[in-house]
Amino acid sequence: MKIVHILFLFTFISFTICHASVNDFCVADLKAPITNSGYPCKPVKSVTSDDFVFHGLVAGSTNNSFKLGVTAASVTNFPALNGLGVSTIRVDIEEGGFAPMHTHPDATELIISIQGEATVGFVTPTGVYTKVLKSGDLFVIPPGLLHFVVNSGKGKAMGYAAFSSENPSTQITDLLLFGNNLPSDLVAKTTLLDLAQVKKLKAQFGGSG
Amino acid sequence: MKIVHILFLFTFISFTICHASVNDFCVADLKAPITNSGYPCKPVKSVTSDDFVFHGLVAGSTNNSFKLGVTAASVTNFPALNGLGVSTIRVDIEEGGFAPMHTHPDATELIISIQGEATVGFVTPTGVYTKVLKSGDLFVIPPGLLHFVVNSGKGKAMGYAAFSSENPSTQITDLLLFGNNLPSDLVAKTTLLDLAQVKKLKAQFGGSG
Amino acid sequence: MKIVHILFLFTFISFTICHASVNDFCVADLKAPITNSGYPCKPVKSVTSDDFVFHGLVAGSTNNSFKLGVTAASVTNFPALNGLGVSTIRVDIEEGGFAPMHTHPDATELIISIQGEATVGFVTPTGVYTKVLKSGDLFVIPPGLLHFVVNSGKGKAMGYAAFSSENPSTQITDLLLFGNNLPSDLVAKTTLLDLAQVKKLKAQFGGSG
Amino acid sequence: MKIVHILFLFTFISFTICHASVNDFCVADLKAPITNSGYPCKPVKSVTSDDFVFHGLVAGSTNNSFKLGVTAASVTNFPALNGLGVSTIRVDIEEGGFAPMHTHPDATELIISIQGEATVGFVTPTGVYTKVLKSGDLFVIPPGLLHFVVNSGKGKAMGYAAFSSENPSTQITDLLLFGNNLPSDLVAKTTLLDLAQVKKLKAQFGGSG
Amino acid sequence: MKIVHILFLFTFISFTICHASVNDFCVADLKAPITNSGYPCKPVKSVTSDDFVFHGLVAGSTNNSFKLGVTAASVTNFPALNGLGVSTIRVDIEEGGFAPMHTHPDATELIISIQGEATVGFVTPTGVYTKVLKSGDLFVIPPGLLHFVVNSGKGKAMGYAAFSSENPSTQITDLLLFGNNLPSDLVAKTTLLDLAQVKKLKAQFGGSG
Amino acid sequence: MKIVHILFLFTFISFTICHASVNDFCVADLKAPITNSGYPCKPVKSVTSDDFVFHGLVAGSTNNSFKLGVTAASVTNFPALNGLGVSTIRVDIEEGGFAPMHTHPDATELIISIQGEATVGFVTPTGVYTKVLKSGDLFVIPPGLLHFVVNSGKGKAMGYAAFSSENPSTQITDLLLFGNNLPSDLVAKTTLLDLAQVKKLKAQFGGSG
Repeated sequence: MKIVHILFLFTFISFTICHASVNDFCVADLKAPITNSGYPCKPVKSVTSDDFVFHGLVAGSTNNSFKLGVTAASVTNFPALNGLGVSTIRVDIEEGGFAPMHTHPDATELIISIQGEATVGFVTPTGVYTKVLKSGDLFVIPPGLLHFVVNSGKGKAMGYAAFSSENPSTQITDLLLFGNNLPSDLVAKTTLLDLAQVKKLKAQFGGSG
Repeated sequence: MKIVHILFLFTFISFTICHASVNDFCVADLKAPITNSGYPCKPVKSVTSDDFVFHGLVAGSTNNSFKLGVTAASVTNFPALNGLGVSTIRVDIEEGGFAPMHTHPDATELIISIQGEATVGFVTPTGVYTKVLKSGDLFVIPPGLLHFVVNSGKGKAMGYAAFSSENPSTQITDLLLFGNNLPSDLVAKTTLLDLAQVKKLKAQFGGSG
Repeated sequence: MKIVHILFLFTFISFTICHASVNDFCVADLKAPITNSGYPCKPVKSVTSDDFVFHGLVAGSTNNSFKLGVTAASVTNFPALNGLGVSTIRVDIEEGGFAPMHTHPDATELIISIQGEATVGFVTPTGVYTKVLKSGDLFVIPPGLLHFVVNSGKGKAMGYAAFSSENPSTQITDLLLFGNNLPSDLVAKTTLLDLAQVKKLKAQFGGSG
Repeated sequence: MKIVHILFLFTFISFTICHASVNDFCVADLKAPITNSGYPCKPVKSVTSDDFVFHGLVAGSTNNSFKLGVTAASVTNFPALNGLGVSTIRVDIEEGGFAPMHTHPDATELIISIQGEATVGFVTPTGVYTKVLKSGDLFVIPPGLLHFVVNSGKGKAMGYAAFSSENPSTQITDLLLFGNNLPSDLVAKTTLLDLAQVKKLKAQFGGSG
Repeated sequence: MKIVHILFLFTFISFTICHASVNDFCVADLKAPITNSGYPCKPVKSVTSDDFVFHGLVAGSTNNSFKLGVTAASVTNFPALNGLGVSTIRVDIEEGGFAPMHTHPDATELIISIQGEATVGFVTPTGVYTKVLKSGDLFVIPPGLLHFVVNSGKGKAMGYAAFSSENPSTQITDLLLFGNNLPSDLVAKTTLLDLAQVKKLKAQFGGSG
Repeated sequence: MKIVHILFLFTFISFTICHASVNDFCVADLKAPITNSGYPCKPVKSVTSDDFVFHGLVAGSTNNSFKLGVTAASVTNFPALNGLGVSTIRVDIEEGGFAPMHTHPDATELIISIQGEATVGFVTPTGVYTKVLKSGDLFVIPPGLLHFVVNSGKGKAMGYAAFSSENPSTQITDLLLFGNNLPSDLVAKTTLLDLAQVKKLKAQFGGSG
């Protein structure tokens, strides 16, 4: 019977193979220009098992003023995620540390708390939603909402977050407001902050003006 | 020949009508629970021409500390927009006024400058994009990016903005940071602002804590 | 504290920047081949503030038999709109002028009436929805529906329209039916129009056959 | 070993079943109000094999002035198609018959020619694309484009068409222009047709005004 | 009046043409790298009527152990389908033949039964949905569900299937499980099949290991 | 200045609030009928911080023949995920245990390996992609592809998986093929398995026929 099957492989399955080669996955060719729907696909024949694995989602350095370490795996360093609508980060926060107010306009963030205690919250125009997370807790932050995480316990807090995008953007409010070259008085005016406050934070975040 | 056509209307067009009644448009039934894809549709037979018109996209009051008037037509007050992916506002800014830093996480904003002079800009983690607009100029703000508008000329500035959503959300940074009941020291910590600054703005924006 | 922040900029924010550079916006590279999701993106580093502004949404010439002027800003002349799902036109119609029956199959049209009086309407297989618009009125035309605008007042009528697509297509019924080289009798048959009528309009719209 | 498996069915598979019951399919509950994303789902437990079959995609009556029969299976009479993005029609055209100029704004039409000879074509603002189809030929009409089919052979022509929507709309130009109560002179003006032509077709298509 | 119209063609319609040239259709350039949203578009000026027709959706060879012939028209051999969300196959099954268990993860399959009798069915974690189809019957298989077709009548069974994707993938369970080089004991373990069964089928499907 | 701001809160921010209340998030009302786009939203005013947290993503029982424990948090038990496009599971596999061959037709699975050693792989019509994962490794399985996980190390293996859907379906090949009431000979025929093999597994998976 085998021979018949082999004949079969040349008539029927050729239909299957032709499809399979173009749409079972689309590993990013990062050297090609990006488009609105992500990167063009690397040729299937050059894709191997190695493309689908990512090593080293390890603790990032927390040697900074936020005591915050973030290690990310998204399409730009894990090209197999291209078009697949998911990515992840590992977050480590030392005691007393925090992630400052920020948003991900184009992605949900689903936090998986692994170790320690963290206070997480997001703000909408009409409410505040905040919780203290312990190991095994999940917390979800809808897309586009301003949020923060604070290590509110003893010792390190650690967790993962999954995003509903292979390439989520991160907009850190301070960095946006103070890490630029807009005139300080314009920033003060449009944020209602005191000018001295703006200048102080511009100095810290590397902004000019 | 007319009679034959009338027969035709009962055999062939019945196919058409059946389709037409369910998907040429979907005017929102605002009393029904909203879903992820918008509001359920009002029955087609109760829809009239009046549903598709909106009166009064007139100047909003600018009698506030921002000297800013905004009048919006979106699905919540113009139900015919349901599912149609577009909405609009009229913006009036008196001399010296401005729109404070804010984002629309789920919509592009395309500004049509009609009168006066306005300085508009948005900020990304890597750059600032800003322009002075005069009558007849357009400026586009990609979704999710922090932006502002300042009347930088003499007299009133007026314009329209089109959004790529029938129900864009608006996240005003100050209102989010200071119009809530989060403890002031938590806000200060996660924004790096001075505590006194936070308390001052909490007082202005009606926040507590 | 500044130095610590600078260290911070190299560890934490590098995560942010890498994201930011690929998906905060996607200004079209109009010289690259278009795809189903629009144009490939121009490199971020060559994008400036000038990309986000469009000058000259001024009155188009109305020196034609329709007394109609249309000026458009869509992705093909305003590449920053690429992928952003919105575009706009300015429409000027002299007294007695009109926009002939047409459709936009892939976009909602939201009309903002600024000046004069216009009668606008659309037709479905089961109904007609029509209104007289005055300054400050909005009217929305769902995607794919045949519609028209007539200056029904004294003097010029002017307005803007926002589309729910950065690249809406426009299908003008007369131009499609009569501006082609299909045989006149085939057009007459499939439209039920008289052959003489077809030939008369073919002559006006530059069709042959 | 069976017993262990049965235990397994209560611990592990319960996870699976819970998912399966809500998203393997969504047969329409046609009595509930439609939404922008189709109809709400009928409860899974009331769905049977009968829901997934449609009987009688047989020849429609061609006893009309177009000599055209159309039988459709779309979500409104085949509720299992809800949300599934495909539907079909059977088209029969007697010798000399035709399908008049029309569009499907929200769906691709893929014609499968089974019997006879048909001339099919569509028109864009810049070109005409037309072909004579024989048995076994396919022809694709992109969404929103004005098209027609003429039986250009001897005897009956028959075929199927697949649509890329479970609920495609059909906009027949004549029916829209002449089957309504818009004033004849308004139709004449906005179509550039002669008033007498408009009145003649209004009489045929049941329009008034 | 013709001259005025010709002037008109240069002022007004240029707006139309510019749009039309980029988004009325997007015939695939199969030589360019594929992206998540399909192939880049072939230049409009090189597209002709021939692009929109596909000849030869004829009976495939049934000279194989399944007695099954499949002929497909999808974007890889009919590039005009690019981005259009629909494709089709012709299926011929000789008496006693069948299509083995398989899935199309990314497409609905709508079967149009033309000739003979076929038993078709799909399986979910909670139910089996199966029917005997005769000429003129439709059967719909939701995306991702495991299904089969058996010629359960006398003589040949023939039909068409429409897919809700221009490039559906086909995952044949046997081919996946046994046509690979995974170790037989790993396949046996993860399928719970007997090792001898796995080895027997590996031999038939060309697998090694 | 505060008073002016309070006035401002009633004129300008009312615009904001109205939006916020309908689209910042959409926590599922699980008692309402599901739709193609998920569940209708629970009223915003009844949503609290508790809606956004999920407790107990703990180890599932591994007391089954697969030595496999799965604990899931998806929209059906964590309603805040409604429409947000992401969900997660915790997977525990004892030494020697495994997850049998299965697919998620509508979701990417991104595995985060936390503890132990696991061999994971997926199969396409043209290739096998498999890797041994250690703590800190990620592995991504594109939607719709048949895959397995085996604990290939010493001691327990544990990890999380993120899905690109709030409600991924899981199709376990054995359960589908053998946990139903299809006649055993029909299953044998369409899988090419031996009848005895089918009957043996039907007995284990609770199928009849």
